[in-house]
Amino acid sequence: MRDLNAVGRIGIGSHGAVTRLVFSVKELRSRQLLIHLMRQAGLKIHIDAIGNIFGRLNGANPKAPAVLAGSHLDTVIHGGKYDGPVGVIGALEAVRTIRENNIPFRSPLEVVCFVGEESSRFGFSTLGSSLAAGEVRPNDLTNAVDQQGTKLADVLASLGITRRNLSAIKRNPNGLKAYLELHIEQGPILEAKNKRIGLVTAIAAPSRFRVVFTGQADHSGTTPMEMRKDALVASAQLIEYVEKTCRKFSSMAKGRVVGTVGAMRIEPGVINAVPGKAELSVDIRGITAGSKDRVATMVKQKAGAIARARGIGVEILPIREEHPVPLDKRLLRITKDICDEKGLDYEIMPSGAGHDAMQMAKITPAAMIFVPSTRGISHNPLEWTDPEDICLGAQLLMETMIRVANNKL
Amino acid sequence: MRDLNAVGRIGIGSHGAVTRLVFSVKELRSRQLLIHLMRQAGLKIHIDAIGNIFGRLNGANPKAPAVLAGSHLDTVIHGGKYDGPVGVIGALEAVRTIRENNIPFRSPLEVVCFVGEESSRFGFSTLGSSLAAGEVRPNDLTNAVDQQGTKLADVLASLGITRRNLSAIKRNPNGLKAYLELHIEQGPILEAKNKRIGLVTAIAAPSRFRVVFTGQADHSGTTPMEMRKDALVASAQLIEYVEKTCRKFSSMAKGRVVGTVGAMRIEPGVINAVPGKAELSVDIRGITAGSKDRVATMVKQKAGAIARARGIGVEILPIREEHPVPLDKRLLRITKDICDEKGLDYEIMPSGAGHDAMQMAKITPAAMIFVPSTRGISHNPLEWTDPEDICLGAQLLMETMIRVANNKL
Repeated sequence: MRDLNAVGRIGIGSHGAVTRLVFSVKELRSRQLLIHLMRQAGLKIHIDAIGNIFGRLNGANPKAPAVLAGSHLDTVIHGGKYDGPVGVIGALEAVRTIRENNIPFRSPLEVVCFVGEESSRFGFSTLGSSLAAGEVRPNDLTNAVDQQGTKLADVLASLGITRRNLSAIKRNPNGLKAYLELHIEQGPILEAKNKRIGLVTAIAAPSRFRVVFTGQADHSGTTPMEMRKDALVASAQLIEYVEKTCRKFSSMAKGRVVGTVGAMRIEPGVINAVPGKAELSVDIRGITAGSKDRVATMVKQKAGAIARARGIGVEILPIREEHPVPLDKRLLRITKDICDEKGLDYEIMPSGAGHDAMQMAKITPAAMIFVPSTRGISHNPLEWTDPEDICLGAQLLMETMIRVANNKL
Repeated sequence: MRDLNAVGRIGIGSHGAVTRLVFSVKELRSRQLLIHLMRQAGLKIHIDAIGNIFGRLNGANPKAPAVLAGSHLDTVIHGGKYDGPVGVIGALEAVRTIRENNIPFRSPLEVVCFVGEESSRFGFSTLGSSLAAGEVRPNDLTNAVDQQGTKLADVLASLGITRRNLSAIKRNPNGLKAYLELHIEQGPILEAKNKRIGLVTAIAAPSRFRVVFTGQADHSGTTPMEMRKDALVASAQLIEYVEKTCRKFSSMAKGRVVGTVGAMRIEPGVINAVPGKAELSVDIRGITAGSKDRVATMVKQKAGAIARARGIGVEILPIREEHPVPLDKRLLRITKDICDEKGLDYEIMPSGAGHDAMQMAKITPAAMIFVPSTRGISHNPLEWTDPEDICLGAQLLMETMIRVANNKL
């Protein structure tokens, strides 16, 4: 907790809001602190070209594939102090405890800090882990630019990373046995169910698209109801439909779909005009591609039906299509067994948010452990997890690391 | 049409957009042009303290109460050339024609241009006619400020108008026989019904209020549907309710109610967050206070019911409450008779928008004549009325002026 709070003080501002955008001075300072802590813990440090940090402790068999555990240290703008650092410092504490107590283990253990998990600066999420997993194609980086106009490609070039050597960052899967990530839930489920541990089955992925209804802007006083082409009322029908449909697909069996209209813009947007244009952003997530895609298709079809019924125009503009990532069943079993042995009450659940584990799962078996978020709040200075829960999560992470390092999967 | 186009060229910008905000140099130039035209027409000009212009032509009985006809010359930002000027120049042309053709009449005729009918600059509509009707209380002006921070009270002070002499602008009702206003419809009804003349029964007035739903902002991926407090879905339900309810009250018998949610703001307003707060502006109008108030009450109650059902907060913030203004039945009868005699097809209809007639009706019998607006467009450079229709409207105005000047009401 002392180290976690030390990280949390880097980039802290008013109301306790923490801002460590990727490649900012604050974020670099948090990485320097981690390197310092890793050295103190006696870890062998390797930093790759993008800046991902790996702190290694060899066990009985230094040549065996390593068990990695970690997360990220960068944050959103005005975020909290636990989203990311809990997984990095939790893994560090686990390895330190193993070393201090001379607990025997076979496979090497590595504490990992991935660069740029948050999309807040360049609109590109899980940057470091995507590169470590070899999941970035040179063209993916072309359009990424921050608010100041700095191009991600230029930042990478200054680190010596070009289109040609991008793929060299990829970790060799042969050297990896597993990736484990401890993270705050960032949702309300554990708190609501009064559970202190969440074991993650899969990471949901979003289908994101924009719906633009084009009706006609008219005077709000002189246009009879039956002659209006109101783009906002059309939007209202779609917003209700998103909620209604996702509720039908909300069970685990139906793919745990959630759908949100989070952003909206209307024109002309004045009190005395019928809205002629409305643009809404739809975000649909599910833990299976089938259910998520099915709901997304239903919503798009409904948008068309609403527009036809009202005699207005509609356009669907895709933003991003991602695929849900199932995590490793054997690792889930191991964490579950440990909880059962220790009498810990856990919840088996999907992750609604994306994480570095989503990328690492593509090259090695991956698992995630959640600890509760008070009121489900995240990406906000009010983000809070009870220190007791963080410690419990770190203990479970440690037990899992030892068991994975000492056993065949 | 030549004079109307001359007015339209003052303040014209790109795409034919006309901007003559009240008390701007452009608007003052349009008033100067009118004074010039009135002089040429042989009218006796009186300008009151606020700048309302009255051009008088005496008939057989110069001491009789006058028949006023006019409208305004100021415009919204990027408006059209007909909203307002049609009524001023139409009245001028009527009086010129009467004079040129030596048509006998008894009561004096006056062409009127009221200052500042549009609320675009100071958020204060029908300024000149409100003052002429004695309907402004000193405190009404206190908060009116334009975008540049200029206070309406300071502009008035520079004209010598203070809180003390404000009421001196009021026209003595004893000197008035009637007020007639020719105006473009600013709505789609006449075009849809293929009628060239509208005879106005009443001017609808808005109830305007803001509804603020306060739920909770949450992560769009990690918050299950059943645990959300989404302020936008609550708003969507209310938006649909406004449409549905107003449709039920849309007949003349039910008060011709129209309701619009024209402006909306959501927070945090990003694609990956459940909206925690939504603020919407509701504008409800009707031609009877009873029907308008009933619908407004229903909408407010529904907002409360939606909030309760969803376990979120709601607040209703009043913006403005106005009362519908019935126009004079005897004058309506006169215009109707003239149309019948001349075989003109007309529509008896309410006005959804506010006009100077709404204020003048408080001190003298008032009537309005509408001419069609192509596609119902107004407050827009695309505002258009066929010149033939404008001339027809001006002819009807002239006939009405003569008949009112020569007969007891």
